[in-house]
Amino acid sequence: MGSVRLIQVGLGPIGRGIVAQVAEREGMELVGAVDLDPCKVGRDAGTISGTERLGVEVSEDLGKVLNKEADVVVLATGSRLADVAPQVEMCVRAGKSVVSTCEELAFPFVAHPELARRMDELSREHGVAVLGTGINPGFLMDALPIFLTGICRRVEGVKVERFQDASTRRFPFQRKVGAGLSQEEFWEGLRRGSVGHVGFRESAHMIAEALGWRVERYEETVEPILAEEPLESRFVKVEPGRCAGLRQVGCGYVDGRRAIVLELQAYLGHPEPKDSIVVYGEPVVRWEVVGGVDGDVGTCSVVLNAARVLPSAPPGLRTMLDMPVIHWSRSA
Amino acid sequence: MGSVRLIQVGLGPIGRGIVAQVAEREGMELVGAVDLDPCKVGRDAGTISGTERLGVEVSEDLGKVLNKEADVVVLATGSRLADVAPQVEMCVRAGKSVVSTCEELAFPFVAHPELARRMDELSREHGVAVLGTGINPGFLMDALPIFLTGICRRVEGVKVERFQDASTRRFPFQRKVGAGLSQEEFWEGLRRGSVGHVGFRESAHMIAEALGWRVERYEETVEPILAEEPLESRFVKVEPGRCAGLRQVGCGYVDGRRAIVLELQAYLGHPEPKDSIVVYGEPVVRWEVVGGVDGDVGTCSVVLNAARVLPSAPPGLRTMLDMPVIHWSRSA
Repeated sequence: MGSVRLIQVGLGPIGRGIVAQVAEREGMELVGAVDLDPCKVGRDAGTISGTERLGVEVSEDLGKVLNKEADVVVLATGSRLADVAPQVEMCVRAGKSVVSTCEELAFPFVAHPELARRMDELSREHGVAVLGTGINPGFLMDALPIFLTGICRRVEGVKVERFQDASTRRFPFQRKVGAGLSQEEFWEGLRRGSVGHVGFRESAHMIAEALGWRVERYEETVEPILAEEPLESRFVKVEPGRCAGLRQVGCGYVDGRRAIVLELQAYLGHPEPKDSIVVYGEPVVRWEVVGGVDGDVGTCSVVLNAARVLPSAPPGLRTMLDMPVIHWSRSA
Repeated sequence: MGSVRLIQVGLGPIGRGIVAQVAEREGMELVGAVDLDPCKVGRDAGTISGTERLGVEVSEDLGKVLNKEADVVVLATGSRLADVAPQVEMCVRAGKSVVSTCEELAFPFVAHPELARRMDELSREHGVAVLGTGINPGFLMDALPIFLTGICRRVEGVKVERFQDASTRRFPFQRKVGAGLSQEEFWEGLRRGSVGHVGFRESAHMIAEALGWRVERYEETVEPILAEEPLESRFVKVEPGRCAGLRQVGCGYVDGRRAIVLELQAYLGHPEPKDSIVVYGEPVVRWEVVGGVDGDVGTCSVVLNAARVLPSAPPGLRTMLDMPVIHWSRSA
């Protein structure tokens, strides 16, 4: 198999992490990079990603970059499908497969059935595949628990918990979980969409789809975790009574029961960071990663591990459910 | 999707566990059962599997049963590919896809390249798929660690440990790990193949294949764990100095390093039963299941979860690596 030629669109923290990985991976080549930020345009995509110079200049013109010969566009520009859909469509029309960190693209059939249908049709028409993935949604709260049910005779429920100490994470993450905000600002941020994790609904429905369950009701709650004493990270100081972070829970009801429970606790100073999955059934399967998985490295990695095999996937809108087992490989 | 019609061949403990699961699963139907044991022939396959009467009489004639309309044959007759290959070929020639617990079939390309090639050709010719799987090989020591690398940027090594308290397992398992044998009998059993786990080599090579590694050298060691005090299970008494079970380690060397280490410790009274996986890389991924996964339920389950999707797999000799993500589903 020859090199996979990639175009990176979006050079925020995740996009730059992806470029840095492409630079070090055998069998992958960056052939284009796009970002609208004037501080990045015209510079070398490798240099601004903290890796070697790659000879790829960042352009602000997606249309022009799409004229390049490439196999896959990696799109890391936003969480909301409505925002990224026009970009996905441009790429697809240019005959490029797309893998995106857009959380709502991981399983868009419930929240955006019409957009999903259109994207599926368009990508089939152009003979390319489109996939939304990442660590979450895309892996820890959906594909992995689904995979674990493979050894079960019977499954009654799935619970996933991610407990994170936000103080070790980058500033945009701390901001997203509300660290440092007043309670009023927290609720206002939640309303505007700048606070809170996007993707629980997608993960819950991906699990249900796999297990043959119908989600009768889906509920999501978000609440601030308040600092009880002064807290501090590299980026923010939090007085007692202000927000240290959040607790967010997504629940899918099946047959009148809470069959799917997804919980994120992310705040400065979480005493017990971990990722855990329990599949309730026979047998009960309990997974735990003490300390948790680094979400940024994980997202960049799973995106590229998927990009490696995306060109050989059947055309259409794909999910992690209908891809072959995604894994790392030295050869790409 | 209509029901998957199954023929069960081999009604040992695993085969009977599979039949019991088929009886309780929606979307699966047992249409035939084969075993050579005169105590089973002529009896109802459900009844002898400890479940409801299924109206399927156990036959000793595989050829005759293969005349039935069926989608998948589940073959649970042996660990060695040379022993089961003629049965697989009969099924394939009868136009049936095959999923088998035969350990050597899980990744037969290294130990039995010629048999594998022939089986692949024959199954393509007849438009059916053949898959070897189970809990181990098939899941815990290969597919799952491979899946976990999906979130890695870089992988340097994989270590899997299964620690089992053999005293909670059925008698054939206790016999297989050597419980109750003298040291002489242990080594003799190992030589004859009645002692020891089959499948480490297959798992190690499946991991290497996925990760793009070349195994320069593969080594496997087995040693008895001796009882230090009198031990007892439902089936066997072990005097001090005799074998309580075994420790078996498979090592794959890549680039001069032990990159793949698979270890099984299975003996009466193991104080710390667990399954654990470590993927060394970035990030390091550590999985642990305290208490471990029940191997029998797991094997029966993964076989049937695979059988559900096998009829829609591309024809040929498949491995867990090129199947879509195998998972439980209520609807089949």
